[in-house]
Amino acid sequence: MAKKLETPLLDRVIIPKDLRALPESDLPQLARELRSELVDTVSTTGGHLGAGLGVVELTVALHHVFETPHDRIIWDVGHQAYPHKILTGRRDRIRTLRQEGGLSGFTRRSESEYDPFGAAHSSTSISAGLGMAVASDLAGLKRNVISVIGDGAMSAGMAYEAMNNAGALDARLIVVLNDNDMSIAPPTGAMSAYLARLVSGRTYRSIRETAKQLAKKLPKFLQEKARLSEEYARGFWTGGTMFEELGFYYVGPIDGHNLDHLLPVLKNVRDTMDGPVLIHVVTQKGKGYAPAEAAADKYHGVNKFDVITGAQAKPPANAPSYTKIFATSLIEEARHDDKIVAVTAAMPGGTGLDLFGEVFPNRVFDVGIAEQHAVTFAAGLATEGFKPFAAIYSTFLQRGYDQVVHDVSLQNLPVRFPIDRAGLVGADGATHAGSFDTGFLAALPGFVVMAASDEAELRHMVRTAAEYDEGPISFRYPRGDGIGIDLPERGQILQIGKGRIVREGSKVALLSFGTRLQECLAAADELDAAGLSTTVADARFAKPLDEEMIRRLARAHEVLVTVEEGAIGGFASHVLHFLSRDGLLDHGLRVRTLTLPDFYLDHAKPEAMYARSGLDRAGIVQTVFGALGRDYLAAPVRA
Amino acid sequence: MAKKLETPLLDRVIIPKDLRALPESDLPQLARELRSELVDTVSTTGGHLGAGLGVVELTVALHHVFETPHDRIIWDVGHQAYPHKILTGRRDRIRTLRQEGGLSGFTRRSESEYDPFGAAHSSTSISAGLGMAVASDLAGLKRNVISVIGDGAMSAGMAYEAMNNAGALDARLIVVLNDNDMSIAPPTGAMSAYLARLVSGRTYRSIRETAKQLAKKLPKFLQEKARLSEEYARGFWTGGTMFEELGFYYVGPIDGHNLDHLLPVLKNVRDTMDGPVLIHVVTQKGKGYAPAEAAADKYHGVNKFDVITGAQAKPPANAPSYTKIFATSLIEEARHDDKIVAVTAAMPGGTGLDLFGEVFPNRVFDVGIAEQHAVTFAAGLATEGFKPFAAIYSTFLQRGYDQVVHDVSLQNLPVRFPIDRAGLVGADGATHAGSFDTGFLAALPGFVVMAASDEAELRHMVRTAAEYDEGPISFRYPRGDGIGIDLPERGQILQIGKGRIVREGSKVALLSFGTRLQECLAAADELDAAGLSTTVADARFAKPLDEEMIRRLARAHEVLVTVEEGAIGGFASHVLHFLSRDGLLDHGLRVRTLTLPDFYLDHAKPEAMYARSGLDRAGIVQTVFGALGRDYLAAPVRA
Repeated sequence: MAKKLETPLLDRVIIPKDLRALPESDLPQLARELRSELVDTVSTTGGHLGAGLGVVELTVALHHVFETPHDRIIWDVGHQAYPHKILTGRRDRIRTLRQEGGLSGFTRRSESEYDPFGAAHSSTSISAGLGMAVASDLAGLKRNVISVIGDGAMSAGMAYEAMNNAGALDARLIVVLNDNDMSIAPPTGAMSAYLARLVSGRTYRSIRETAKQLAKKLPKFLQEKARLSEEYARGFWTGGTMFEELGFYYVGPIDGHNLDHLLPVLKNVRDTMDGPVLIHVVTQKGKGYAPAEAAADKYHGVNKFDVITGAQAKPPANAPSYTKIFATSLIEEARHDDKIVAVTAAMPGGTGLDLFGEVFPNRVFDVGIAEQHAVTFAAGLATEGFKPFAAIYSTFLQRGYDQVVHDVSLQNLPVRFPIDRAGLVGADGATHAGSFDTGFLAALPGFVVMAASDEAELRHMVRTAAEYDEGPISFRYPRGDGIGIDLPERGQILQIGKGRIVREGSKVALLSFGTRLQECLAAADELDAAGLSTTVADARFAKPLDEEMIRRLARAHEVLVTVEEGAIGGFASHVLHFLSRDGLLDHGLRVRTLTLPDFYLDHAKPEAMYARSGLDRAGIVQTVFGALGRDYLAAPVRA
Repeated sequence: MAKKLETPLLDRVIIPKDLRALPESDLPQLARELRSELVDTVSTTGGHLGAGLGVVELTVALHHVFETPHDRIIWDVGHQAYPHKILTGRRDRIRTLRQEGGLSGFTRRSESEYDPFGAAHSSTSISAGLGMAVASDLAGLKRNVISVIGDGAMSAGMAYEAMNNAGALDARLIVVLNDNDMSIAPPTGAMSAYLARLVSGRTYRSIRETAKQLAKKLPKFLQEKARLSEEYARGFWTGGTMFEELGFYYVGPIDGHNLDHLLPVLKNVRDTMDGPVLIHVVTQKGKGYAPAEAAADKYHGVNKFDVITGAQAKPPANAPSYTKIFATSLIEEARHDDKIVAVTAAMPGGTGLDLFGEVFPNRVFDVGIAEQHAVTFAAGLATEGFKPFAAIYSTFLQRGYDQVVHDVSLQNLPVRFPIDRAGLVGADGATHAGSFDTGFLAALPGFVVMAASDEAELRHMVRTAAEYDEGPISFRYPRGDGIGIDLPERGQILQIGKGRIVREGSKVALLSFGTRLQECLAAADELDAAGLSTTVADARFAKPLDEEMIRRLARAHEVLVTVEEGAIGGFASHVLHFLSRDGLLDHGLRVRTLTLPDFYLDHAKPEAMYARSGLDRAGIVQTVFGALGRDYLAAPVRA
């Protein structure tokens, strides 16, 4: 359909060495071609667009100035690394992005020697880079390590911890602060670029060193005064005193789309640095593609789209997403109870709390990329009688685990944890899978741990969590759309620790925790057709367990299979512990557990991932047959 | 023995209201009496001394100026809260500190209405305080919330996240930065205290407000200039621009031992604040008790001691501590392999890495209270071929969990995790118990998870971890001393995923993971005496499991009991999953699991805690009898 892109320069760049062979005067054109290639690629694959567009020139400049892969470039989060992938030997596969067997949507060590560190969760790059820089020093190697981090990612405590440590270690580390929030960044222009060049240049450095040496000979009080004067003089124009206080040499702000500014600054830093340096680069998210520039948020992550109009393809949804059901349910509860408040760690859109915020702007708190703080902040709200819902994706809740244990659970504070993106997440892959939450939460004394088997159940669980005030409570639900079931106006209050029998049988019991219930029902049909009368139960609670129901299932069936979309250590573990404690295994029970497999699942279509995990109908049926022995395994039963 | 303390003023203060009734002129004397009471108390109980001595005046001042408990004081970590406990209705129980049934060594909501937030892990107070401050605003209440945090705790990312958020929310929150590192703090004195008083006073505030209003009418460029000039003028003297950049109004530094400085500043802040304020207080750890002043580190946490001489009672150890064995083993390995490096998050003494650092000063990295960074920093080192040992207590590793998952496990980087303080920790109580590590680590694909059953095993595991370079590996070991077993000069390399049979029997199998092995052996003696021939196995690995050994145990015995010092979701869960998957439960196996109980165990003597958990000899024997049925339960067998 679209005509082939003309990219004569880009066609000559297979790896960064080719790029370094180009004269500087060719680089703006290369950047233009790279930008076109990026837009064209993402229009066919979907994925992250705006972030990559914002760093096209920076990517070109970094690979031009630094000797990658010997020098290390670490892209924080990795959303912005598509242009980097195109320039580092992966252009021929770039249209396989985020598809099964194709390139990852993030950096990945196993994918390329140009990816020294895998990413996906925010704010790790400075820590990783510091480790590499220290390693080079220890090994006596001269190596440049560059961590590229966005201003948003800088709000995470982890980034601060790393800066603080880097400053103290005085390591040879370059942090490029990619600042694309124009409302926060100071205005840029020729003057500041000039100052930045000056500041990072040899001349300035040596003047500064001389002054430093001189200052050391002054009396202590004047020394401090001199230091402050110098910092002030620079801080006044640059705003960088905060980074200076953390021990970094600050350079910037500079225009991240102007190679005439970027290249000399990077070269100066490369050639003169002897400790940690922060280069403050100002960029525009979505730069150079009009629809993305106009609405940076909508073009952060995109579906396939039309390059000319920018119109994104939306697959028709049969049912609203779980995220939306959560949001509308919470809004409904909040109308009835003004103690309900909501907390998000920089994901108002992803969690649906943007909708909540439209209705209750004073009752939602976006604390930034700061899950540790988010959890304890919610705990503080709970101590004063509020009902905080701390909505955090399963994978990101790992960031606040100690706070969940120490500040919430140990004090038995009624913080509510809606856990979105629980289980497999398709194209986002292993880094975003929500595999461990049931295990790490159900291990905690007194925690109530729920999973929704469909969107109506989710609505019930929002209500149940709102009403439950005895201690911490969580409910998990998956990425994507509901199953299209009828929704009640308002949820019911579920009895804590009570599951439900969805379908009665007599030989096989399938005990589901969460959204694999539909597959269990489909498997039950198939098993029934094979003459194996099958019960299906929806556990609802991993903690407290419905011991009475489980006892009944164990006693009245020959086979008991638990099914959950989580790792070992979660729901099934609690069921097995109970069964052993209660003596229900003493006289034989063909119990089997289906969990996520004990390896990381690469990105793919959800159906393929479930099949690989054995968590689909076929996998469940197979497991039952396996439990019953060879004869059944041989029987080729398919509904 | 010691004569009764003379504390006439303190005797009149039962709760803070009594303190507020005293004239200011009485407060220095009250502080002196409080200090004596504190020294006398800790000399008989042991516990944290230096931190409390450093905040005696601050504690008096805060309770004098603020209307506790309506106003909230949150003590970060809580080591320094003993004087607060003495002044808030708990003096009569203060000599029960850290003893079973007695006061906690930390603040605790269930203990007093004057403890609005429980503490023990560092750097949570600003987040919790911000939650309370926001709650008060939402509820329309006028309430002062004061978070007292040490300069060390400020190195944690969580504190930064909270400051960043508080600044943005413009909440009414007072952070008292208790700065007791004299090498970092600027010198204090009359001049700075004067400036601080001035700065926090009504006069200065109103001048400042006027200037602000005026500045708003200036053109944008000059506005910025005016703002910076004002900040500079203050920052020059106070060094507080970093906090100002985070949105806090900075006051200080002031002398935290001088009530004439503290009281007016606190009152000014109380009466004039309208947004977040940071009061920078400089104190001396151990203040007022000569031995503690002279060696602040040695008097941070103390055993019982003699008040006159300062000599601490040291119970004679029969064997070196696990911590020391770890350190000496790692030193030995590091002599053989110069790629071995070590990382600690502000616990060089606690982890034994101070000893390592004496031998290899360039190969140990103390990154501050920053577990998130510590883990990913270690991951960065591993990418470059180093062998990092990230030594973090079990309970604090929770702080770096996402980094363990995302940066280490997903990339399969060979970071070594020595996990000290795994299991119960006696007087430190539930907040420091290491209960969850086996669960949250063994859930991760590819992770090797070990536990040492004695100090020789620990030495083997250090060696094994040093040699193992295929991916992440951990080994847990408890607080306290070894069992006194002979130690090899150097550890052996264990075969990954292989346990060992320690004692052969035929009817009962005890499968131990970690240091409960000795109790299993004692239980086996008792069971044998009762005619139940008992096998004891040391699993060594929770992951990968020794499936062959477990299969043998399951097939050759009537009863299989797993024993571990951890929560549900850990070792036993993996064993049970394997048993079910392998069909070993299909025909009946009396399997029982002993784990830590599903409630938080209060501080007590370790023996009492093990008994409560059923993890001692008696508990194991009882479990076996229970599994075998009523007849056995009735039999009163005691060795």
